[in-house]
Amino acid sequence: MSTGEIGSTLRQPVFADWMRRAQEQTESALGRFLPSAKAIPYRLNQAMRYATLNGGKRIRPLLVFAAGDLTGAPTHRLETVACAVEMIHSYSLVHDDLPCMDDDVLRRGRPTCHVEYDQATALLVGDSLQSLAFELLAREDLGKQQLVMLRLLAVASGSCGMAGGQAIDLESVGRHLDLPELELMHALKTGALIRASVLLGAHCGEELSATEYIALDRFAKRAGLLFQVVDDILDCTASTATLGKTAGKDAAADKPTYVSLLGLEQARSFAADLKQQALESLAGFGEQARRLAELTEFITQRKF
Amino acid sequence: MSTGEIGSTLRQPVFADWMRRAQEQTESALGRFLPSAKAIPYRLNQAMRYATLNGGKRIRPLLVFAAGDLTGAPTHRLETVACAVEMIHSYSLVHDDLPCMDDDVLRRGRPTCHVEYDQATALLVGDSLQSLAFELLAREDLGKQQLVMLRLLAVASGSCGMAGGQAIDLESVGRHLDLPELELMHALKTGALIRASVLLGAHCGEELSATEYIALDRFAKRAGLLFQVVDDILDCTASTATLGKTAGKDAAADKPTYVSLLGLEQARSFAADLKQQALESLAGFGEQARRLAELTEFITQRKF
Repeated sequence: MSTGEIGSTLRQPVFADWMRRAQEQTESALGRFLPSAKAIPYRLNQAMRYATLNGGKRIRPLLVFAAGDLTGAPTHRLETVACAVEMIHSYSLVHDDLPCMDDDVLRRGRPTCHVEYDQATALLVGDSLQSLAFELLAREDLGKQQLVMLRLLAVASGSCGMAGGQAIDLESVGRHLDLPELELMHALKTGALIRASVLLGAHCGEELSATEYIALDRFAKRAGLLFQVVDDILDCTASTATLGKTAGKDAAADKPTYVSLLGLEQARSFAADLKQQALESLAGFGEQARRLAELTEFITQRKF
Repeated sequence: MSTGEIGSTLRQPVFADWMRRAQEQTESALGRFLPSAKAIPYRLNQAMRYATLNGGKRIRPLLVFAAGDLTGAPTHRLETVACAVEMIHSYSLVHDDLPCMDDDVLRRGRPTCHVEYDQATALLVGDSLQSLAFELLAREDLGKQQLVMLRLLAVASGSCGMAGGQAIDLESVGRHLDLPELELMHALKTGALIRASVLLGAHCGEELSATEYIALDRFAKRAGLLFQVVDDILDCTASTATLGKTAGKDAAADKPTYVSLLGLEQARSFAADLKQQALESLAGFGEQARRLAELTEFITQRKF
């Protein structure tokens, strides 16, 4: 393994360098795994690339790579898994932005997929990215846990995971949710895929003990919720230009958020508690959990 | 294996009885595999059941069961695979019926999913059915070929398969397609999943020889194209009441079909040729291919 690769422990680059390299590695692998823009069907393939290769933060791939450090996972497996979870995430953004859902025109500072192409193409882009994610997880040799990994991603994506959370979100508009209901919605809507990213990354290497797996799962759940609380705070404090997507949408749509339920200051203090709990769950892993801990800080402090 | 189960060769029921039993078995297994209507998120789960448990012809599950006869496949595996391909098919119908695609209000004699529920829910129904299909294929023990089977279904569903065919279809409206272009579109749009159903059914049992696999693949491709040619003929000859979906839509939308390209009589003769080729491909399998041959007749003669 060269020192330039993610997962190397020979020379630990500082976090910012590690993150930039992991993001570049993800971008390059996505480019290879996505269908060529020069192949039939041209428009669909181009739109799939447009919707995916747009310099997102790649939080979920970063979690995959960081969790792979815990189990000495090979880089090529982590790349495949990172791309699969990012494709699921990208598909969900494309479908969420459609007029019948959030009806948004801006994503990562560019026109959303259905604005740049058309709604029918955007629908098929999401559908095809989901298929491709599962194809990737079934294509490469990912070791003994491969079927477990496929199930994990499928459950995290479907009606008991991301899509289910989206459905609860739809039903909640204009309604009062209490805190446990809001937490369930987010545990599914964003939490499930973030949790899956962490667990899938770890599954790429040596098997964890039961105790380690439980601790990592606890970390993953806390990190997922933290991500969402910070998202809610940013939605009401950051500008559209900084976010690269329309700010203040949730408040405008009368959607329940941690800020609307707790107020801004209490939401910030809740985020600080979640970060602390997430970091404590990593205590047993020592130095191998360094990137996961740094990512937790990054998720807490991010400005967009 | 009891004589009431599909796949039994002890007492061969007549085709109509075999088909009815396989359809009931599929319906019952789908009911078990789909999320409960009494579980959260209620509306999504109810809509998933509405869109799937609607007495479709279950052609793809029938192909799975019939192909399983070739390799002595266990019934429980065939049930799982039959439900997975039917969920992919059901998701594609829900998305195809959306206003941004075919904008259809009638499906199997009932309001389409987005009419009965709403567009956002229908979008999530399709997304969740796709995830559930892959979860099923990864959940049960399907034998040594399981990863191959997962890849097969993923490729058949995505941009190189069903969704890709749909994209070509979108681009073809109002344009002249020649016969090879029309065949490519249909090979992807409907052919890919029909082919996958046949191959997946066979993969549930003993491994086929290379020669047998090639013959079965040839059958599966011919059967898929035959299904579409018959569909085109029915679209212009049957009534909306008989079809349970809006008749004459393709002609009205100026979509290229086998009838518009070849004329009705030549389309019928093309269907007869395809049926003959399909049946010839089964010659080497003898009595074990009986159900596949009967299904080929059924596909050719169906009136809806």
